[in-house]
Amino acid sequence: MKKIINTPEAFSTETVEGILLAHPDRLKALNNDLQIVVRNDEVKKGKVSVVTGGGSGHLPVFLGYVGQGMLDGCAVGNVFASPSANKMYTMIKGCDNGAGVLCLYGNYGGDNMNFEMACELADMDDIKAAQIRVSDDVASAPLENKHKRRAVAGLVYAWKIAGAAADKMLPLEDVIAVTNHGLDNLRSMGVALTPCIVPMAGKPTFSIGEDEMEVGMGIHGEPGIEVRKKMTAKETVTVLLDKITADMPLKKNDEVAIMVNGLGGTPLEELYICYKEAYEYLNHIGVTVYKPYIGEFATSMEMAGMSLSVLKLDNTLKEMLDYKASTPFFTNENK
Amino acid sequence: MKKIINTPEAFSTETVEGILLAHPDRLKALNNDLQIVVRNDEVKKGKVSVVTGGGSGHLPVFLGYVGQGMLDGCAVGNVFASPSANKMYTMIKGCDNGAGVLCLYGNYGGDNMNFEMACELADMDDIKAAQIRVSDDVASAPLENKHKRRAVAGLVYAWKIAGAAADKMLPLEDVIAVTNHGLDNLRSMGVALTPCIVPMAGKPTFSIGEDEMEVGMGIHGEPGIEVRKKMTAKETVTVLLDKITADMPLKKNDEVAIMVNGLGGTPLEELYICYKEAYEYLNHIGVTVYKPYIGEFATSMEMAGMSLSVLKLDNTLKEMLDYKASTPFFTNENK
Repeated sequence: MKKIINTPEAFSTETVEGILLAHPDRLKALNNDLQIVVRNDEVKKGKVSVVTGGGSGHLPVFLGYVGQGMLDGCAVGNVFASPSANKMYTMIKGCDNGAGVLCLYGNYGGDNMNFEMACELADMDDIKAAQIRVSDDVASAPLENKHKRRAVAGLVYAWKIAGAAADKMLPLEDVIAVTNHGLDNLRSMGVALTPCIVPMAGKPTFSIGEDEMEVGMGIHGEPGIEVRKKMTAKETVTVLLDKITADMPLKKNDEVAIMVNGLGGTPLEELYICYKEAYEYLNHIGVTVYKPYIGEFATSMEMAGMSLSVLKLDNTLKEMLDYKASTPFFTNENK
Repeated sequence: MKKIINTPEAFSTETVEGILLAHPDRLKALNNDLQIVVRNDEVKKGKVSVVTGGGSGHLPVFLGYVGQGMLDGCAVGNVFASPSANKMYTMIKGCDNGAGVLCLYGNYGGDNMNFEMACELADMDDIKAAQIRVSDDVASAPLENKHKRRAVAGLVYAWKIAGAAADKMLPLEDVIAVTNHGLDNLRSMGVALTPCIVPMAGKPTFSIGEDEMEVGMGIHGEPGIEVRKKMTAKETVTVLLDKITADMPLKKNDEVAIMVNGLGGTPLEELYICYKEAYEYLNHIGVTVYKPYIGEFATSMEMAGMSLSVLKLDNTLKEMLDYKASTPFFTNENK
């Protein structure tokens, strides 16, 4: 296991410590609990809160997106392990401004169960806590079982949309409606070239041949649809966009935002080569890229690989994307 | 060789194509030459130009820093290979606003020779073209031979400082003076855990044991000072900061900017753990971190490793760091 860390046991908490030391004006640990990170800037009174949670090992997911116009707080567990329901509940309670809390998180067993319990606890405190599960990965289940799909990098779009709606002071029902509208128009899929190593386990999450890539791999190393011989950037992007557009048809003159996400170990050069291929694929069918996002947005530590997320846009979604956001890892100015 | 690319031959140019497609409002290829990238936004009349150049494979270096408050243009060669003197000359000429051009680049043989020739050619056109070579890597030569040292991630600070001075409309002599002042107060050093693969070569740049790290490694895989058994994050940071502070002493109440730079394959989690250690090391000797920069700023494709760059600050350098910059990969607002 080749990592620059102190001990596997301290990996998650020391990561959070480093982030808090780097961004003291933006983030704080609620009750000094390094598994609960919330905004440290001023939050608008009466604003709906948008929160999330899950295992660590995915930076900038989750902590990196806590800030104005995106998330108000998150609960973070150990690597690839859900934080407890109690941590989530404490985080929800700490973030509530009286207007309700939207728990917006990836569709994973542990997180589902724990957020369910946390929301029940919040409910007993008369906190309106709603839940939306993100399930953008088209490779993980067929369309008719969309509720079974996993979340991948599309999470970041979900938070951007919900966070903007909340910052515009929309009531909880409207934040939920806009977010669901966004998720209806969002699809992702990725490939992995190498596994990652969970520090406490000390060995790779899966094995794959030197000339192979796993198509449809999940963000924790969940198996994909198939193992293929290594493909070119053009072939890879075509496989992913064929599958995405079969699931969510795009037609001439549609506008999309596209995210070319590196899983942690893939050089930025390769992501830009993939973007060129994605741009040309979309251009060929008459679809315009309104906004590209290229970089590492949701990772699996040192895993090499890439995912594409496509968000089909209308005026509402453009407005949410363009809305001001200011977090440690993601900022954009009003357009 | 596990990369998501089309062909090794097209690696560098397709990377640039992707970047230009993603940032058409910010960047353009001069004369449609994909090895010469310049600003596509409006450049202030009469401003000194700051330009650079070198081999590709280091994103966000170089193209990512072309924009307001940083670089006006760059010439980019193939992976780890200097662009030709002629490309550099064309780029210098294309960027000149009449106030002179500062060529600010890393101290490498090929780049030195080619920029030397390019500046001679520019001189024949009556363009004032000055050169400063960045040599921030303390591991690459002793202090008395500072001019022999290589450049590593400190390049980014150099461009930030020079770019701010130029954008403030200082004349060429003053831009040079401020930049040299910055470089006098800048030191870097790194470690590598794995090699990278140059696409055209198809094999790793060096070999290293599974339990070893190379201390003082250059950004192209140049040998470091020593190969050590794997160290913890605390030990690694201590080795680097001991060496940096022996070269550039820091005393109580000094303020620094510190960059924790990932070489491409190192997860962000590890960089934040290293930042925590660096913060504590500096805090222990009474030194304050004015501004941390944590992420991938200067890479070697998929190489795993980390470098630290320390910039000792005074009011002038703080002003330059805080000055507005807006490029595809680096922005900051005026403080």
